[in-house]
Amino acid sequence: MHVEPLSEDDRAEALDTLDEWDYDEARDAITRRFTFADFSEAFAFMTRVALLAEKANHHPEWSNVWNRVDVLLTTHDAGGLSHKDVALAEAIDALLG
Amino acid sequence: MHVEPLSEDDRAEALDTLDEWDYDEARDAITRRFTFADFSEAFAFMTRVALLAEKANHHPEWSNVWNRVDVLLTTHDAGGLSHKDVALAEAIDALLG
Repeated sequence: MHVEPLSEDDRAEALDTLDEWDYDEARDAITRRFTFADFSEAFAFMTRVALLAEKANHHPEWSNVWNRVDVLLTTHDAGGLSHKDVALAEAIDALLG
Repeated sequence: MHVEPLSEDDRAEALDTLDEWDYDEARDAITRRFTFADFSEAFAFMTRVALLAEKANHHPEWSNVWNRVDVLLTTHDAGGLSHKDVALAEAIDALLG
């Protein structure tokens, strides 16, 4: 299913709002590193993100080393950032309270 | 806790036994890519590996993109491969039947 990429204005607004996320220009993606007390906490977070992702039918590219989780969001079907990434980033941020 | 790295002979034997795993010489690590039907299956596998890892108190470096899981095993406290990596790799392989 084709998804429209964000317009320049919408991208700028999204990056302004998602102030904990970094912009990866090469991928037209947003990234954020999350650090927890230990692996158990990190994987609990990943499980919650997995549920969000499956519900949204939009999935992160992510990696985990011990207490650290690196998340990259982009939309392959849009060739870059779309509203799906903004929505998932906001939902992930909301997990952290 | 310091862990002894594998001897040359033990490393060679381990790499011979773990024939689905590749050797990353730069990291003195073993890696394996797992591919599933979809994200749900991939994350179910990750959850099972997380339980194994926590039980063994030895954790992978790993990443996931949709249906793909890339696992790298090495032992930081040993500066490379140790018996912990061999045991975890065998336990992961055993999940796949």
